[in-house]
Amino acid sequence: MKPIRVALLGCGTVGREVVRLLREQADELAARAGAPLEVAGVAVRRPHKHADLGDLLTSDATGLVTRDDVDVVVEVIGGIEPARALLLEALKAGKSVVTANKALLAEDGPALAEAADASGVDLYYEAAVAGAIPLLRPLRESLAGDRIMRVAGIVNGTTNFILSSMSASGASYADALEEATRLGYAEADPSADVDGYDAASKAAILASLAFHTRVTAADVHCEGIRAVTAGDIAAASAMGCVIKLLAICERTPADESMPESVSARVYPAMIPATHPLAAVDGAFNAVFVEAEAAGQLMFYGQGAGGAPTASAVLGDLVAVARNRVLGGRGPRESAYASLPVRPMGTLRTRYHVSLEVVDRAGVLSTITGEFARHGVSIAAARQTGEGDGNNGSARIVVVTHRAAEAALAATVDVLAGLDVVHGVHSVLRVEDLGRKGVAG
Amino acid sequence: MKPIRVALLGCGTVGREVVRLLREQADELAARAGAPLEVAGVAVRRPHKHADLGDLLTSDATGLVTRDDVDVVVEVIGGIEPARALLLEALKAGKSVVTANKALLAEDGPALAEAADASGVDLYYEAAVAGAIPLLRPLRESLAGDRIMRVAGIVNGTTNFILSSMSASGASYADALEEATRLGYAEADPSADVDGYDAASKAAILASLAFHTRVTAADVHCEGIRAVTAGDIAAASAMGCVIKLLAICERTPADESMPESVSARVYPAMIPATHPLAAVDGAFNAVFVEAEAAGQLMFYGQGAGGAPTASAVLGDLVAVARNRVLGGRGPRESAYASLPVRPMGTLRTRYHVSLEVVDRAGVLSTITGEFARHGVSIAAARQTGEGDGNNGSARIVVVTHRAAEAALAATVDVLAGLDVVHGVHSVLRVEDLGRKGVAG
Repeated sequence: MKPIRVALLGCGTVGREVVRLLREQADELAARAGAPLEVAGVAVRRPHKHADLGDLLTSDATGLVTRDDVDVVVEVIGGIEPARALLLEALKAGKSVVTANKALLAEDGPALAEAADASGVDLYYEAAVAGAIPLLRPLRESLAGDRIMRVAGIVNGTTNFILSSMSASGASYADALEEATRLGYAEADPSADVDGYDAASKAAILASLAFHTRVTAADVHCEGIRAVTAGDIAAASAMGCVIKLLAICERTPADESMPESVSARVYPAMIPATHPLAAVDGAFNAVFVEAEAAGQLMFYGQGAGGAPTASAVLGDLVAVARNRVLGGRGPRESAYASLPVRPMGTLRTRYHVSLEVVDRAGVLSTITGEFARHGVSIAAARQTGEGDGNNGSARIVVVTHRAAEAALAATVDVLAGLDVVHGVHSVLRVEDLGRKGVAG
Repeated sequence: MKPIRVALLGCGTVGREVVRLLREQADELAARAGAPLEVAGVAVRRPHKHADLGDLLTSDATGLVTRDDVDVVVEVIGGIEPARALLLEALKAGKSVVTANKALLAEDGPALAEAADASGVDLYYEAAVAGAIPLLRPLRESLAGDRIMRVAGIVNGTTNFILSSMSASGASYADALEEATRLGYAEADPSADVDGYDAASKAAILASLAFHTRVTAADVHCEGIRAVTAGDIAAASAMGCVIKLLAICERTPADESMPESVSARVYPAMIPATHPLAAVDGAFNAVFVEAEAAGQLMFYGQGAGGAPTASAVLGDLVAVARNRVLGGRGPRESAYASLPVRPMGTLRTRYHVSLEVVDRAGVLSTITGEFARHGVSIAAARQTGEGDGNNGSARIVVVTHRAAEAALAATVDVLAGLDVVHGVHSVLRVEDLGRKGVAG
């Protein structure tokens, strides 16, 4: 049987695992793919660091991806360039592509999909979202007969590790980040993770698949976790909630202001401690899916790491190889629905607002009056610290019913300017994620 | 675009949902499949009960599945015959098949797979295991590049409902079954569920896919939940465990007695209350998968019901239709590994054994001595009731380390015959399912 020849771009943690598994499980992979999978070459920037790969090594990535004896290109370099140019080149040359590159897919996925279509080859990227967790294939294929209403998940292990450890120990954000860095869960420059960009890329990919609509990273509202304090975690706990950085993709039915639309957003939110996502701790990932007929589903597992990511890459590689052997192609992207992306201001969620105010009679009434004036309905308001001698300051916590983002923002703007308000501690969204028993 | 014509066999809860969704989501399904999906006919035993389907109805199922204008046959009748004969007929006639029939697949899956291969058509059955949860496609495709070591799941909603309610309320098995029947979670004749046969069918299907080996229902060791008592639930709770009816499929490495082998079994077992499966309550299903590179994964959702099962059927139907439109086929079954099935006697797990004994000095030593004589190592032994005047009886609970099933069974046989033993209350397996911190 003619082998399927694989070019590997990049040979870091994931790439080395891919090479190892291709070698160690060669017989099993060949049986499943219908042909042996052979490494044709490995393109790296510094070949001397990978001397054990011998003749397979090259620093000429462009040459490798267009070589006649290459059938499939596996890209695990990451980042936009040179990955984009190399993959477009590979697709143009009729090579199928397997990639784990969420940033590239979220920025320019449609261009890659079009190039794959033009050449009639496969473009697979299960490893780009939630590592080893089979998620994209279930969304695209298993749920193809259903209507997905919401995808909400913990898709970034670094931030989940930080928030879990703040929650477990009461640590500050800075201390928890330091611990994560020391243990290797956070990179030296953690911004892609803690500012939410990594999760936002994944949200764009998930929303595109779930709603058959092109959603790019630029369409995703993104807030990170730098501003989350130990006080926020404690406030969540007092409400029977935990704080998780969520990637939320939702379909919203048509209403008077908009046709049916989709929303994709990333922010830290309070969720009920009884929700299955609340129990997902440490560096694990989990994604909660709601579909009209299937109901609620959850997928859980390791979202990062060399071996888990390599498992997802190899699953795709076997699929691509099998398609090659049979002379076919896997299911394509589709963006037939082309739903508009809902502006963030029109989004309706619940909020937890915490304020430091002057400790005197009538302040609570002034504050709640401002919410009412902006049409934001209050579910609960609580004042603490009254008369306890802490320099005339009291803390007011307001939890709203579902309200429009724009109305809430306007309310908070006004509150911040009031004489009786010393400061706005935090504004956190509360997401009930479709659980019953949580008032809307 | 030429439509894909669908013949539906059976029109019960699932069938009606399939028809409803095919009609209500016709445009979306057509966009995803690449062609409209049309119902060509519906075969039912009593056509007068479904008058709203009009001309589509027929009682001639054999005629329907071989009709020239039918491309795909969807079977939701259940049971072995006439489903088997009809599906073999359909496959022979070149129709692709989508079925939710776990009993048939577990008994005669290979015959169906061969018939599909002979005609070059698709055989899909995501709905047969764990209803709406995308599970078979992830096992077969997403993890195709990995080595699955274990699949362990709660795959029967009826028994999970019963065990959950026994656990929550302290109810007896009989009372919990009565409640489940009243609420519609258990059928009038509950044996297929409570005796474990339904779960055993699913275990056979899961083991076949996970290990690329033909495993049929006859290969699955099967025990149900009728013997589980409120006392067992309380004993589990005292150990920090809960009792779940598990379908467990495991790959065991070669050892001195056997080559690499697989095991598939269904029984109620104690699992740590901290394990993700322990929190799966009510009629929900969840399946825990461990793979060499991917690590631990979990899939959670609704395992039964009209709409969830229809979601899985339609996902398959869209895939089959897309394959037809593109002129290809989906990934096939493979049984290349052909691993032997491990005899139950050689299985090694931990056990929780509860005995009623004569309350006098030296009995605990006699009992533990019997375990030792059979080579069964004890992790903990506890005697209660001593000297409390309850007619000279005491309760001894022994928890073993991992021991061979045959050695444990021989031990229990001997214990049951001892003069000092009034009776063996229960023998329950303890499964740690790969969680760290549980002694082996």
